[in-house]
Amino acid sequence: LELGIGDDAAVLAVHSKRLVCSIDASLEGVHFDLKWLTLGEAAARALVAAVSDLAAMGSKPVAALVNLEVPPGAALADFDAIGVGQRRAGRVMGCPIIGGNIVRGSRWGFTTSVMGSAGRVIRRDGARPGDEIWLAGHSGLARVGLTLLQRGSAIEELPKALQRAAKLCLRNWKVPVARLEEGARLVGKATALVDVSDGLSSELRHIAEASGVRAVVHSDALLATLDSPVQRLITWLGLDPLEVLLAGGEDYALLAAGPAAARPAFVHVVGEVRRGQGAYVATPGGLHRLATGFDHLRSG
Amino acid sequence: LELGIGDDAAVLAVHSKRLVCSIDASLEGVHFDLKWLTLGEAAARALVAAVSDLAAMGSKPVAALVNLEVPPGAALADFDAIGVGQRRAGRVMGCPIIGGNIVRGSRWGFTTSVMGSAGRVIRRDGARPGDEIWLAGHSGLARVGLTLLQRGSAIEELPKALQRAAKLCLRNWKVPVARLEEGARLVGKATALVDVSDGLSSELRHIAEASGVRAVVHSDALLATLDSPVQRLITWLGLDPLEVLLAGGEDYALLAAGPAAARPAFVHVVGEVRRGQGAYVATPGGLHRLATGFDHLRSG
Repeated sequence: LELGIGDDAAVLAVHSKRLVCSIDASLEGVHFDLKWLTLGEAAARALVAAVSDLAAMGSKPVAALVNLEVPPGAALADFDAIGVGQRRAGRVMGCPIIGGNIVRGSRWGFTTSVMGSAGRVIRRDGARPGDEIWLAGHSGLARVGLTLLQRGSAIEELPKALQRAAKLCLRNWKVPVARLEEGARLVGKATALVDVSDGLSSELRHIAEASGVRAVVHSDALLATLDSPVQRLITWLGLDPLEVLLAGGEDYALLAAGPAAARPAFVHVVGEVRRGQGAYVATPGGLHRLATGFDHLRSG
Repeated sequence: LELGIGDDAAVLAVHSKRLVCSIDASLEGVHFDLKWLTLGEAAARALVAAVSDLAAMGSKPVAALVNLEVPPGAALADFDAIGVGQRRAGRVMGCPIIGGNIVRGSRWGFTTSVMGSAGRVIRRDGARPGDEIWLAGHSGLARVGLTLLQRGSAIEELPKALQRAAKLCLRNWKVPVARLEEGARLVGKATALVDVSDGLSSELRHIAEASGVRAVVHSDALLATLDSPVQRLITWLGLDPLEVLLAGGEDYALLAAGPAAARPAFVHVVGEVRRGQGAYVATPGGLHRLATGFDHLRSG
């Protein structure tokens, strides 16, 4: 065992080759609602969420195992739909499902164990004062998509100018992508790496805590990662764009730290690492500590 | 990938070393009730059930990952109890939990992914006509224990002469053992191997179907695997001993096929493999086909 509990995935040495493994659950009523997703989409999304933990290590998927919980009254067509969704997602990511288990339960549930290979992995505990904070991908779009679904807002009922941004946000929530290529390309460059599944501010806290540093993101740099139509949609929905960016998870963006000299072209610089501790957002109004849960902005 | 879906576990070649992996779920309200088990026992039992799939391949555990579903109102002490139970079971089996995930859900649930190593594995599809059917461990005791729990029968309310057998049966259900040593010692001897988790008759069908043979167990040989106090307890409970033996799962016994010349000392011979198809039980009254579900005895 080279790396155990506490990172995005565990690392196991098997002879000369490292095996990276992780487990993740996606449960009906907790993580998704079948009013919002087809079963095939839910199955694909569950696999992407699990594989994203491999991306967050800079690892390449090898295989997945899925435990499927099935509610009463499931039909044969449901299993077909799940199989189609899983195979499609697995093919895109190069991650075949090599085993599984089916349990008669009370709702649909996908618990996915993934294994990946890696020459060298990127942990979350290596950020150093002076590093930049990098974002690969977007944060917040999936949360806007989820808000649209939760409110039952149909695309065609939105102002014309917002419809395209709404579609993008819905797609980000429904059909997320595991950033495997970016993760692999960060190996040897990033000093710390996580995937954003539980919200950017809590992932930033994870890097700060594990690395024993202060991680500071800049509100203007974060806001600059959002296209203006998306910003307008967020405002139209009555949400605060910075709150959405910081709370947003499920886009499966990658959040990294690394020295400016090593910065790859595909990342946004959104902050920096300082001596100290805690995760902070720097706004024109001052420095705010990013606390737990959804109570994000706390003076400090 | 050397062996995928359809056996007890999947086999992955990682350089020169095989990795055997499997996933299994144990859910409150489906697989256990907290009236019958402490949380620590439930956690340990879930790990044993998952590791038993490695025993069923003749593989040695390497590590496990656990997805823990937590109901509302869980206390910190609950997590402590789970950790104690998991560590104890993991230590006994040489299977550390190297990663995990926690999900806020609606009940307690343990979904466990296990990885094992193996030089050579035992599949379920190699049984040949002329082989014997072997049972390592017991079948049915856990089911008797579960019946006692479901009926709310307290040990001290039972006739004195049955109390020891009842304790044994309760222990078999509450604290099952993964037969890792027996599994490993069957490598090179057994032609097919499964663990009995879903009932002996359905596991026998799996061997017969996968191997393309007829698998026949003998009622007298099966009944001889039960101590007479246990047989008396079964009768006292109004159950049929043969039914209990055939339907019994969750003892995590191993069921194998293999040639008489290779038979190890620790197995009971309970039947034989013939040309043909299907799983059967031979009773003094004739040959009965073992059908699906709990409708076990069907003439054929």
